[in-house]
Amino acid sequence: MMKDKTGTGETVQLDHGSGGIASNRLVRERITDRLGHISGTAPLEDCAVTDFPNMSKLAFSTDSYVVDPLFFPGGDIGCLAVHGTINDLAMRGAEPVCLSLAFIIEEGLSIYELELIVDSIGRASDKCGVPVVTGDTKVVPGGSCDRIFINTSGAGFLPMERDISSGNARPGDAILISGSCGDHGITIMTARAEMSLTGNIQSDTAPLHDMVKRLLNHIPEDAVHVMRDPTRGGFATALNEIAADSGVSMEIEEAAVPVRQEVRAACEILGLDPLYLANEGKMLLIVEEAHAGKALDIMRSFPHGREAAITGRVTGRDNPGRVTMKTSAGGSRIMAALHGNPLPRIC
Amino acid sequence: MMKDKTGTGETVQLDHGSGGIASNRLVRERITDRLGHISGTAPLEDCAVTDFPNMSKLAFSTDSYVVDPLFFPGGDIGCLAVHGTINDLAMRGAEPVCLSLAFIIEEGLSIYELELIVDSIGRASDKCGVPVVTGDTKVVPGGSCDRIFINTSGAGFLPMERDISSGNARPGDAILISGSCGDHGITIMTARAEMSLTGNIQSDTAPLHDMVKRLLNHIPEDAVHVMRDPTRGGFATALNEIAADSGVSMEIEEAAVPVRQEVRAACEILGLDPLYLANEGKMLLIVEEAHAGKALDIMRSFPHGREAAITGRVTGRDNPGRVTMKTSAGGSRIMAALHGNPLPRIC
Repeated sequence: MMKDKTGTGETVQLDHGSGGIASNRLVRERITDRLGHISGTAPLEDCAVTDFPNMSKLAFSTDSYVVDPLFFPGGDIGCLAVHGTINDLAMRGAEPVCLSLAFIIEEGLSIYELELIVDSIGRASDKCGVPVVTGDTKVVPGGSCDRIFINTSGAGFLPMERDISSGNARPGDAILISGSCGDHGITIMTARAEMSLTGNIQSDTAPLHDMVKRLLNHIPEDAVHVMRDPTRGGFATALNEIAADSGVSMEIEEAAVPVRQEVRAACEILGLDPLYLANEGKMLLIVEEAHAGKALDIMRSFPHGREAAITGRVTGRDNPGRVTMKTSAGGSRIMAALHGNPLPRIC
Repeated sequence: MMKDKTGTGETVQLDHGSGGIASNRLVRERITDRLGHISGTAPLEDCAVTDFPNMSKLAFSTDSYVVDPLFFPGGDIGCLAVHGTINDLAMRGAEPVCLSLAFIIEEGLSIYELELIVDSIGRASDKCGVPVVTGDTKVVPGGSCDRIFINTSGAGFLPMERDISSGNARPGDAILISGSCGDHGITIMTARAEMSLTGNIQSDTAPLHDMVKRLLNHIPEDAVHVMRDPTRGGFATALNEIAADSGVSMEIEEAAVPVRQEVRAACEILGLDPLYLANEGKMLLIVEEAHAGKALDIMRSFPHGREAAITGRVTGRDNPGRVTMKTSAGGSRIMAALHGNPLPRIC
């Protein structure tokens, strides 16, 4: 819990979810006015109407955020909810247009924490240039949810002919990751365990739409086959899903996958594999080999892409769904999807 | 809780939310495959891409559903989540294109109940002709949410020039309601109190987009000023919000507002006013007086619009935001927005 520096001790009450005058005031004073001041977003409506470009397809995505703790090194549930949904749109090659914002709040949440979260949403939305245009707020009795859950959905547009999807990886393609693996997952796990670690471990939560835009501006569109943000299940699980969807096998060089030293050390203490931990500001890119170098340069031109790396390649179609790892010791093993070992409420 | 007729006793486990193999199986076998079989919806993706008409504006809406109980006379949380978001789109005059579907599930929810809910979503989506195209599933530990919460967001399109909104009511307009008030609210309250009432009290949950379409096809578009589904806060609160947004006063004839006899009787027992109770399949229409009769005929041509009525009119601009009620006894009183009296988890 964050210390209430306002000292008012105000909390969200059941009446704030009734749909009457109290609801209206909570939403206006604590949410829509604050968002408007920060991000210039127009008042949130039950249903928003916005412009949409001609000759475009609609991209549409949704995610609920139930992360525990609400505030963690590098971010909080608010900016995470903005970045996560923008990234889901970006991974299809879409340009995000607008977001929806739905809160489920437990009676008794401090208004101070709610405002911190709303402010974080406003700043993230403003920085990304993607406005929140519609919303909903529900309040449930104490014990019926854990403080606050957030759903953001997003709409975006993309050119009619653009086709970037999990099923498009082809033998010969290079597999890139835009930075180090496991930062978000290990941050949440250590924050929850109240472990105090040396080094600067923090969530990588960040928007990826600008990186995608630059990639698509500089690489022939039909050479970009798959983009994916490896969130829950991490790098390893995302590659397994892509390999299965595309009917291909893949080979990854263990030594090429970037993992920060502090993350590796914390993972050893907790018995976790960083390649299975959630990332919230990283993208996988599967691209024709001839363009891999250019893509790497573009990724590295962004602050959150400095550690980008070419980690392996799509090997063939004989063993569809199989991802193997060439270990640093020179061996080879199957890198399966996440199985068991639940890490609940990581995002 | 619904009796598990499959007798397997299977429940949702934390591992189902990990993003790994168990998550993948739960989502595929219990959600996407079932939805696909029922509604023909394509597999749900992290981010869906669908066609969107040229020369249209984008309508975008979101709602979370936390209703308790999950199953109630006339419906359940699943069909409610489909109808509610379709209705929010329709109230702006938009044609719904697609829905997103996000579950937050408490560890221990029976798979049987999850499947009942998914099946209800599939049938409602199919019947409305609005596919679910993208989704998300989170699982939280026991005690961190109450069984299941659902968020649906929706995208729709509308012609560039269409402008139906809460701020457009004008003096002289007629105020119509498409049917009886309070049915959903009283159903939930009596179900939760485990009251057994005589008469057939059930939720009015229903989609309204077809009624809207027919209204807009037969009445000049610029004569249709406001549409609103009076959900939380009910008929009275919705009118107060519209009166404030439009800067007008309104007068309602108490005797003209349809309330079913069973609902009125249950409200008297519970000390509730049906005009402040949630509706989930009713619309308010504020339309130029000359077209009110035609609008009434159109509403009444639908099974769930048979009790539609002209309930009052927009009176002027001298007392913006004031809604008065001419009582059956011949008096007149202010009909304020809902204040206090929280009815949590009504939708």
